[in-house]
Amino acid sequence: MMEIQSRSHPYTVEPFPDLRAALGDFEQKQGIFCVADKRVFALYEKDFRAALPAEKVLQIEATEEQKSFERLTPIFVWLLQNGLRRDGLLLVVGGGVLQDIGCFIASVLFRGLRWELIPTTLLAQCDSCIGSKSSINIQSYKNQIGTFYAPHRVCLTFSVLQTLPWDEIRSGLGEVIKLHLLTGENEFRELMADLAGLPDNTQILPRWIMHSLEIKKAYIEKDEFDKGVRNLLNYGHTFGHAYESASHYGIPHGIGVTLGMLTATYVSSKLGWVSADDFQDLKRRLGPWYRPYEQKLKSLDLDKVLNAIKHDKKNTGNAVNCILTRGPGRMEKTAIALDQQLRPWMTEFISGQC
Amino acid sequence: MMEIQSRSHPYTVEPFPDLRAALGDFEQKQGIFCVADKRVFALYEKDFRAALPAEKVLQIEATEEQKSFERLTPIFVWLLQNGLRRDGLLLVVGGGVLQDIGCFIASVLFRGLRWELIPTTLLAQCDSCIGSKSSINIQSYKNQIGTFYAPHRVCLTFSVLQTLPWDEIRSGLGEVIKLHLLTGENEFRELMADLAGLPDNTQILPRWIMHSLEIKKAYIEKDEFDKGVRNLLNYGHTFGHAYESASHYGIPHGIGVTLGMLTATYVSSKLGWVSADDFQDLKRRLGPWYRPYEQKLKSLDLDKVLNAIKHDKKNTGNAVNCILTRGPGRMEKTAIALDQQLRPWMTEFISGQC
Repeated sequence: MMEIQSRSHPYTVEPFPDLRAALGDFEQKQGIFCVADKRVFALYEKDFRAALPAEKVLQIEATEEQKSFERLTPIFVWLLQNGLRRDGLLLVVGGGVLQDIGCFIASVLFRGLRWELIPTTLLAQCDSCIGSKSSINIQSYKNQIGTFYAPHRVCLTFSVLQTLPWDEIRSGLGEVIKLHLLTGENEFRELMADLAGLPDNTQILPRWIMHSLEIKKAYIEKDEFDKGVRNLLNYGHTFGHAYESASHYGIPHGIGVTLGMLTATYVSSKLGWVSADDFQDLKRRLGPWYRPYEQKLKSLDLDKVLNAIKHDKKNTGNAVNCILTRGPGRMEKTAIALDQQLRPWMTEFISGQC
Repeated sequence: MMEIQSRSHPYTVEPFPDLRAALGDFEQKQGIFCVADKRVFALYEKDFRAALPAEKVLQIEATEEQKSFERLTPIFVWLLQNGLRRDGLLLVVGGGVLQDIGCFIASVLFRGLRWELIPTTLLAQCDSCIGSKSSINIQSYKNQIGTFYAPHRVCLTFSVLQTLPWDEIRSGLGEVIKLHLLTGENEFRELMADLAGLPDNTQILPRWIMHSLEIKKAYIEKDEFDKGVRNLLNYGHTFGHAYESASHYGIPHGIGVTLGMLTATYVSSKLGWVSADDFQDLKRRLGPWYRPYEQKLKSLDLDKVLNAIKHDKKNTGNAVNCILTRGPGRMEKTAIALDQQLRPWMTEFISGQC
């Protein structure tokens, strides 16, 4: 069991053998209501039925479109109409979208409601389930609205990864790789060696998930509100978000992050922060994890990508803020000129001329 | 200048001679955008024009209907479209509705934006401008959504009270009276003596506004998140909210609170916490401040009132939680049976048979 400090309340990450155990006993959770990813519910309906009365569970389609005030409204109303009280509990079961929705609702309903999270994707288990953030979209503005509000408990069960599509495993590895790259060469090398066992041996995942959470814990406990060192967790994200958005989410988040880290390393090599060989070496090592999306990357419209970078919410002045690297464990935030520097270098990167 | 501690950041309440001075210098407030009550803007257009470029100010109708996700959406979009950045500043000018809207937006936009408040009603100046709360409605559920997020500065100017309708002054006094009743007999007696000078001499108000804020400051610094002693600030509110709601807001908030405190005292006398004479004495003293609304009170539908009390968000079990009194300075939270106790006593109170 891991305990995490957060300004509003400390919380725990607790392991469970399977989803049924993670869902717990209804009788012991007074005032509970549950929002669950529709696909997860369908896969584990028996467990849900055994754990919770049908009228206490709302199934939600886990799409980006759900993360809007319009789509959140019926969820708030369902909870209020069915008698959720301020001393109640919201149980959230699913991946990143469910977490965003559940966390946002819990943070503003009654000005703060108790909530617990059962993350069911690798991305959510290895990364987003801790750190308190929620993100909501408004019209075309993505993730500009949100809150910091940690769950009161995270219930981890690795057994659900068995029903996760391989593509989502690959996407989740993007954040696992990022966290280990942030830590140092040895950690990164050990991880990459172990990942070679995938997809046949998924038994290696729990260890790396727990490693990832331990790494992230240190950042968020030092800087929960992302004013300083936590910024480094955005390594690969400025570029990654732009690839996601310019591909209309055809490139999933974790793959975007993997490609984004590689972009950051290419830009770093152009600035002389790392050598051209360092970049080639990383490209070779990350290859297996992003290759199926190489064509999607090549077909992106560069102007769309640059435009997305320009509007990234992490930019506070006229320059573009990126996290670049001097090698594993040596990431730094710096400002880069969009047209003079990023445009030519990203043209090369996206087209594969590097 | 008063400094207030809050979990997210300390903030100050600073006096200004007039609205123009409170609005400050545009050049010194980088990235500023302003949302203002339409009526206040119309009254003080010259000051706004002198302080801020027209395209930086959004006028908002200060109605309860504005406090919904549907109506907030265009405000968020206006801010994003016009280039508000995460290091920008939201200036909010108006009374309670503008404060609710501005505070909610500032608390969730970019997961927390710097904001400053110029409260322009007596209610906002004497009470709501400190304490961090925002409240938003969803469909028929009032104030069930919200956040705790203090402004980064409160700019107080008493000069705007000169253009405030007398009815809003009377409503604002409800919270001033409540805060002094919470403190003790002497404070309450001194206040009531001074208020006799109204409406002719509004020069007495600044002193009592500052007194009120000093009293409230002690409660919110001890218990910002309303888990304990801050509950007492809800004295009069369970009944008051019900009167507001059952009258479709024909009874304004502060008048509801005044009538609510009197109801709480009547209920307390029925329980033997205070004497019947104590109740009659308070009724006589509060009379001048609620009398114009006595007919509205008498015409209320008791079932609607009781229903509103039942659904008040402060109830956590099956009993109704109210703050009752053993006399000025001696308020206590207690549970009361709705049908056996509140129904007969409130029938007497509302019909004036007491």
